[in-house]
Amino acid sequence: MTKKKIRVGLIGATGYGGVGLIELLINHPLIALSALIAKQETGKPISEVYPHLKGFCDLPVFDPTDPQCPEDFDIVFFATPDGVGQKEASKWLHKGVKVIDYSGDFRFNDKESYASYAARIGKPKEHANPDILHFTTYGLPELHREIIATSQLVGNPGCFAVSCILGLIPALKFGLIESEGIIFDAKTGVSGAGKTPSPSFHFPARYEAMNAYKVTGHQHVYEIERELSQAANKELKVTFTPHVIPISRGIVATIYATITPHASMKDVREAYQTMYNKEPFIRVFSHGEVIGSTDVRGSNFCNISLTIDSRTGKLIVISVIDNLVKGQAGNALQNMNIMMHIDETTGLMYPGNFP
Amino acid sequence: MTKKKIRVGLIGATGYGGVGLIELLINHPLIALSALIAKQETGKPISEVYPHLKGFCDLPVFDPTDPQCPEDFDIVFFATPDGVGQKEASKWLHKGVKVIDYSGDFRFNDKESYASYAARIGKPKEHANPDILHFTTYGLPELHREIIATSQLVGNPGCFAVSCILGLIPALKFGLIESEGIIFDAKTGVSGAGKTPSPSFHFPARYEAMNAYKVTGHQHVYEIERELSQAANKELKVTFTPHVIPISRGIVATIYATITPHASMKDVREAYQTMYNKEPFIRVFSHGEVIGSTDVRGSNFCNISLTIDSRTGKLIVISVIDNLVKGQAGNALQNMNIMMHIDETTGLMYPGNFP
Amino acid sequence: MTKKKIRVGLIGATGYGGVGLIELLINHPLIALSALIAKQETGKPISEVYPHLKGFCDLPVFDPTDPQCPEDFDIVFFATPDGVGQKEASKWLHKGVKVIDYSGDFRFNDKESYASYAARIGKPKEHANPDILHFTTYGLPELHREIIATSQLVGNPGCFAVSCILGLIPALKFGLIESEGIIFDAKTGVSGAGKTPSPSFHFPARYEAMNAYKVTGHQHVYEIERELSQAANKELKVTFTPHVIPISRGIVATIYATITPHASMKDVREAYQTMYNKEPFIRVFSHGEVIGSTDVRGSNFCNISLTIDSRTGKLIVISVIDNLVKGQAGNALQNMNIMMHIDETTGLMYPGNFP
Amino acid sequence: MTKKKIRVGLIGATGYGGVGLIELLINHPLIALSALIAKQETGKPISEVYPHLKGFCDLPVFDPTDPQCPEDFDIVFFATPDGVGQKEASKWLHKGVKVIDYSGDFRFNDKESYASYAARIGKPKEHANPDILHFTTYGLPELHREIIATSQLVGNPGCFAVSCILGLIPALKFGLIESEGIIFDAKTGVSGAGKTPSPSFHFPARYEAMNAYKVTGHQHVYEIERELSQAANKELKVTFTPHVIPISRGIVATIYATITPHASMKDVREAYQTMYNKEPFIRVFSHGEVIGSTDVRGSNFCNISLTIDSRTGKLIVISVIDNLVKGQAGNALQNMNIMMHIDETTGLMYPGNFP
Repeated sequence: MTKKKIRVGLIGATGYGGVGLIELLINHPLIALSALIAKQETGKPISEVYPHLKGFCDLPVFDPTDPQCPEDFDIVFFATPDGVGQKEASKWLHKGVKVIDYSGDFRFNDKESYASYAARIGKPKEHANPDILHFTTYGLPELHREIIATSQLVGNPGCFAVSCILGLIPALKFGLIESEGIIFDAKTGVSGAGKTPSPSFHFPARYEAMNAYKVTGHQHVYEIERELSQAANKELKVTFTPHVIPISRGIVATIYATITPHASMKDVREAYQTMYNKEPFIRVFSHGEVIGSTDVRGSNFCNISLTIDSRTGKLIVISVIDNLVKGQAGNALQNMNIMMHIDETTGLMYPGNFP
Repeated sequence: MTKKKIRVGLIGATGYGGVGLIELLINHPLIALSALIAKQETGKPISEVYPHLKGFCDLPVFDPTDPQCPEDFDIVFFATPDGVGQKEASKWLHKGVKVIDYSGDFRFNDKESYASYAARIGKPKEHANPDILHFTTYGLPELHREIIATSQLVGNPGCFAVSCILGLIPALKFGLIESEGIIFDAKTGVSGAGKTPSPSFHFPARYEAMNAYKVTGHQHVYEIERELSQAANKELKVTFTPHVIPISRGIVATIYATITPHASMKDVREAYQTMYNKEPFIRVFSHGEVIGSTDVRGSNFCNISLTIDSRTGKLIVISVIDNLVKGQAGNALQNMNIMMHIDETTGLMYPGNFP
Repeated sequence: MTKKKIRVGLIGATGYGGVGLIELLINHPLIALSALIAKQETGKPISEVYPHLKGFCDLPVFDPTDPQCPEDFDIVFFATPDGVGQKEASKWLHKGVKVIDYSGDFRFNDKESYASYAARIGKPKEHANPDILHFTTYGLPELHREIIATSQLVGNPGCFAVSCILGLIPALKFGLIESEGIIFDAKTGVSGAGKTPSPSFHFPARYEAMNAYKVTGHQHVYEIERELSQAANKELKVTFTPHVIPISRGIVATIYATITPHASMKDVREAYQTMYNKEPFIRVFSHGEVIGSTDVRGSNFCNISLTIDSRTGKLIVISVIDNLVKGQAGNALQNMNIMMHIDETTGLMYPGNFP
Repeated sequence: MTKKKIRVGLIGATGYGGVGLIELLINHPLIALSALIAKQETGKPISEVYPHLKGFCDLPVFDPTDPQCPEDFDIVFFATPDGVGQKEASKWLHKGVKVIDYSGDFRFNDKESYASYAARIGKPKEHANPDILHFTTYGLPELHREIIATSQLVGNPGCFAVSCILGLIPALKFGLIESEGIIFDAKTGVSGAGKTPSPSFHFPARYEAMNAYKVTGHQHVYEIERELSQAANKELKVTFTPHVIPISRGIVATIYATITPHASMKDVREAYQTMYNKEPFIRVFSHGEVIGSTDVRGSNFCNISLTIDSRTGKLIVISVIDNLVKGQAGNALQNMNIMMHIDETTGLMYPGNFP
């Protein structure tokens, strides 16, 4: 492989989203991780912050304002919270560098949609850089692969959104379910909340504690509705209830929709096979096969199982991902591969470990 | 206290349902635990099987056929799997002894309903003693307190059923929700599966593993539908999806129903207050208050929170219990107190421990 | 019971040590919990901070400087971090109120010992109130019951210290082990670190993470050495290594000591039986009986198992407690019962729940 | 890479040791996994037994007696319990196939040593094939790399033994500790007990339950003593106490030894650096650096930290591995690489995932 390696800059390197990407890039054959940038733990080798990286990646963490920090990247990841990318991305875009942002900053193409989203997370409704919003692409490869491939700016989806959208799109697109009354009951491990300690995620308080939260108020609902509405070719609203479960990794989204008259299990299976047949990271299961969070832990897969409740006329879809891989760093890397025009699965073909 | 103590016989003493009852009876002031009976671990003191009981309850475990086993009980608990109580209860009923059964054996008043239930758990559809079915009372005190008080035979409800029924009954009874399209998405800790080891509940296989199971096929749906239908005064069918979560104790049922036109959050709150105002073991919370499994762990409470999703017209109820207390042994003891005409809360007023 | 109830003031009510005491006092028949005092969450009912207490204890949390705060206590608990009791206790002592302090502030009778302890936790070496140090009693009832009964000021032991001291004292007192080379390898659940969130105890970072910490530097070693030295009637030094285990509750201390020539297993068993025969909260087990943290979870018991490794001449003692009960609130209540001259076991006879 | 791939046969493919090896072999560039063999789950694709493998390895599981089962292997792994390899290995050895066995069957070179080991696990003391015992090599690469490279038959070490031996060998070899009174206090996750369900490892019974087990009776002590004795050049006996911790993966061995007069921390550090400087899978840490099980989870590393307790003259070594990787499948693969004369680290350079 004489090809020049892709130079990657990682901003927000010390959060879970950052370390998750580093873990993958370490064995990516076409990548050179050029710089780790963060506002915390600066000056230290990243392997001091995350000792499992020792010997694999001992790069120092640069403060974003440090003049020593390398800048010659082909692509930059913003593995940062909401509000950072929208202020900093332009600088890189102007240099011709490609940008993938993990937060909600670039998941919406217009100011109004962003404002609804921002309101739910207590951020200013005004986007800091609204002019670039119409350039951004929603980074869900299974739906937008072609556009991602030609985009310079990609907004990586919310972790819940990945599981919910992938879980329901085929049924909706093929007209097998009603667009009214769709319900997403989603369960996530605690790593979805990120790295910052808080009373609710303090170990003793969380041990054996499961609960719903942000009932009717979670911000991921907007991107879910936008993608589903596009697939259904009509505006729809959904009910989305997130729950936090005392494990580290994994999302199980249980999805309920009313099956349309005459739609059969066979139709449903065919719709999912048609859409996902060639997807490298989606595995479809039938009714009766139990699928769980450890089947995808540490891997970039989305597992989907399909059941019809004939007594009540509901389609029940279970959609399972690792929130830190297909729900975050893995999906971001998949986007990068597409944007850099290399094999989409490069550096991502790991099964994870069991148990 | 010169009153003669209530003599209790406990059949199935060595399972989780048995030990849970023993824990409560130890400090029940009006009870004499007369005999522990089981088919396993016979001959040993129960405190050898469950060392935390050492010094609190060191009674031996009798084989049910052991002629030495005491028989002079006022009440007998069958903390046994499906199929045991239906064969053995008559013997005690004929002697005038009261009986509470934990399994599905006495949750239904007719053969047909029992048959539907039995089919789902792979048991013979024929009840072993159908003649006594019409005597039995469904042991959910909040709904059937008066009948329980005069019953000689009570079928303790399924753990999921307790959380689901208590969570939705007021909305249904007061006509605030549609009877169509009700969805129960329930999450349980692993102790709900009982004491017998199995590959799915082997610790390493279960650690960090959450999943749905028995999708569209769980047996508790029938008692839920029966009780809701009575409240709604019309036959209804519901969607019920159980999930297993890698913790020991707790059920969180997330319930979705379509709100009827004109029904307001105020109406909903009033309905729940009207029904549950005087209930000693139900606590109602409003939207925004996070309620979780550790709020009821080790206690006999059912915590319920109420939210309306005004965007989609759904009522979202979160109903939380400890599956081994309000979902099993605690509720059974509550039934016993009612049947023996003593204060319903006797021996049950513990808050549990946090964290 | 016409006797006037004991009025209790609880300072530091909102920490784990505080809530643990409240849980016990709720059902203590001779207690009136008069006031909850803390610097956090003031103004709220405690049941808003800890929802499992709702209906059991809804007292408000008073700021310590609030003039409305009740003051007519018979006894005050300082369930506060190091440094608080030493400043505040005098005020209560002067009024004739009894005081039990959870921290290290009153575990030592002289300034020098306190200084060694304080140095290890980064506190000023100068005790704020050294004049009262010689009044204080080390609150381990199994060793100092008689003095506790006549003390006005008691320093509740460190959680590790309880398990380590109780585990080894009989062997040492009866001269069955060498005083050199004693090793304590202790494992604790995370609740031992208290309620304040931190990176190391953030749920995702702690899930599946076990490690040793403060190797050769933990502060509990001094009280362990002091008590053991008294028992051995000679100065000794021990090796003490704490580990944190990703569970909520429980300490397992594994203790290694060199058996003296001619000392037999029979001698060892007799020593422990002699000392602990009448202890209400100690249970002694023999070699081969597995004892674990869930055997004492939620109860005030210390379980001890005894083994001799004849190949290497070591006595191996396993000593198990619930760090929040016998290691903290339960032991403190046991001290209170003794100080108030009521039955030592009052309000403490619970087996805990399994599983 | 035109070189012919190494053909691997995996016997015992369906246990944790088997699946752990498959996970690694999937991305090993020089391997062709030729056949999966087991007595359970035969006929199914392995990916039905372990769904995370779906798409990565869908090979069927052959019964060992199945005539269809491929046999043309270069190397065979016995990922089987004690007793299997000793009966079956000869067949392969005679064909010139190399053999690595996970169990204790080939960890000892003489009948007597094997008999001591076998007695502890309740197996017949007579080895089934004692004639090949003197051919076998103990498969700890850090100590026996050269002999492994020329061996046809290797006994992979016990998981505890890996952590204990690697943790202490340098101190012993360089004469920095006394050979008397060495203590290993080891803590393991539950996966170390394998895949078969049992009451003690049933999820609800194990949740929050930690305990010591097999106190003075664990079988790994013999291989530890043998290796340490060789290093010390004198017969020694050690105290070894295993504990089981309610997590899935990880061993933390805390090791206590008496430092020899004049040995300093500097000496100790130099000894470990000298021995481990070039080891690809050992990382040495100093006092004060906290090392935990998640630093090596999913990787083949052994992390070691060194502390001297100057108050008591003890060297305290913390040695941490993933019991399923460096403690089992990863170490086995490292042995294979050595035996097949390819780069020892091939297919093993993964950091694992955090959190």
